[in-house]
Amino acid sequence: MMSKADNNSVRIDLPDWIAGVEQQLPASLETAEQRMSVAISLAEQNLRHGTGGPFGALVVAVGSGAVIALGVNRVEPQLCSAAHAEIVALSLAQRRMGHWNLSETPHGPLQLVTSCEPCAMCLGAIPWSGVTSVLCGATKADAEAAGFDEGARSSRWVEELDRRGVDVRTGVLREQAARVLERYARQGNTIYNP
Amino acid sequence: MMSKADNNSVRIDLPDWIAGVEQQLPASLETAEQRMSVAISLAEQNLRHGTGGPFGALVVAVGSGAVIALGVNRVEPQLCSAAHAEIVALSLAQRRMGHWNLSETPHGPLQLVTSCEPCAMCLGAIPWSGVTSVLCGATKADAEAAGFDEGARSSRWVEELDRRGVDVRTGVLREQAARVLERYARQGNTIYNP
Repeated sequence: MMSKADNNSVRIDLPDWIAGVEQQLPASLETAEQRMSVAISLAEQNLRHGTGGPFGALVVAVGSGAVIALGVNRVEPQLCSAAHAEIVALSLAQRRMGHWNLSETPHGPLQLVTSCEPCAMCLGAIPWSGVTSVLCGATKADAEAAGFDEGARSSRWVEELDRRGVDVRTGVLREQAARVLERYARQGNTIYNP
Repeated sequence: MMSKADNNSVRIDLPDWIAGVEQQLPASLETAEQRMSVAISLAEQNLRHGTGGPFGALVVAVGSGAVIALGVNRVEPQLCSAAHAEIVALSLAQRRMGHWNLSETPHGPLQLVTSCEPCAMCLGAIPWSGVTSVLCGATKADAEAAGFDEGARSSRWVEELDRRGVDVRTGVLREQAARVLERYARQGNTIYNP
């Protein structure tokens, strides 16, 4: 039975293996490609361990490349349709920074790095989070080719984020990122959209 | 210091007062207005107790009106920009139902009731949640008049949700819902968008 507190709490835990991954990361991830490699590796490992959907994300300091938080998709294991990799990484970064607004941290501007372009929900979450920059790997077309649904996303999402002061670069290590999605689909895993 | 587990967990707790509110609710909320009254009352109480932004939401069974979960905005107290009332209510409902997909519960189709039309993030979250119906109180115009930002929401959001099998009705007890937002703004509270 859940305790009274648990009955009124939402909790998303990262899988156990992720602490080991974090310990072994270099002190800073300097280039866009280094950062994206980590996001893709998280997606791959999440698929391999069977701990969620094939998506990985991280929050890093734009300037220093210091890693603030990692995230993976946890929808199925944590029974939470909002537990996309981006929401998990952003929320965990906010918790670690002690502020809901990531534009106000001692690390300077922060960046969200995600193995796949964000769906409509995650796209909507980005401006509220305070990150000033987003790097994406696989594109909407890659996600859709693997059977995923990105939701009712504006086709001008890059300009719309830019207008809100969030710089976007997409297609970073695209082929490598798309291969994780293809593998997931080929294995006949659940595509968890109602 | 956070324990290792806490360091890799995102947690959103509802305020303590909400358990008492839930205990005193009638066994079923039959009409749209009864359901919306609860959402507005949650928003008001959240403002009065200083436990988050002036937004309330709940998940109910469309048919029986049984209450599945309540939610309020917890962005500031829980240091989480994604902790909007809708995300909290949907996530808690999923946890209580033991499934990330609310279209597969013993209560039949479920409905999200929210004191204000959803922002871009919450709008994106709705199709992933499995609810088949949404009731909204205050409109985007009301939220904006109070200084809130709804994000890059499509102007055809009602049709877009309809196309995904989610029925939307907005403006339910609109004036009463908008008054909570006005009061928040008049009190000079933070509008917490970066």
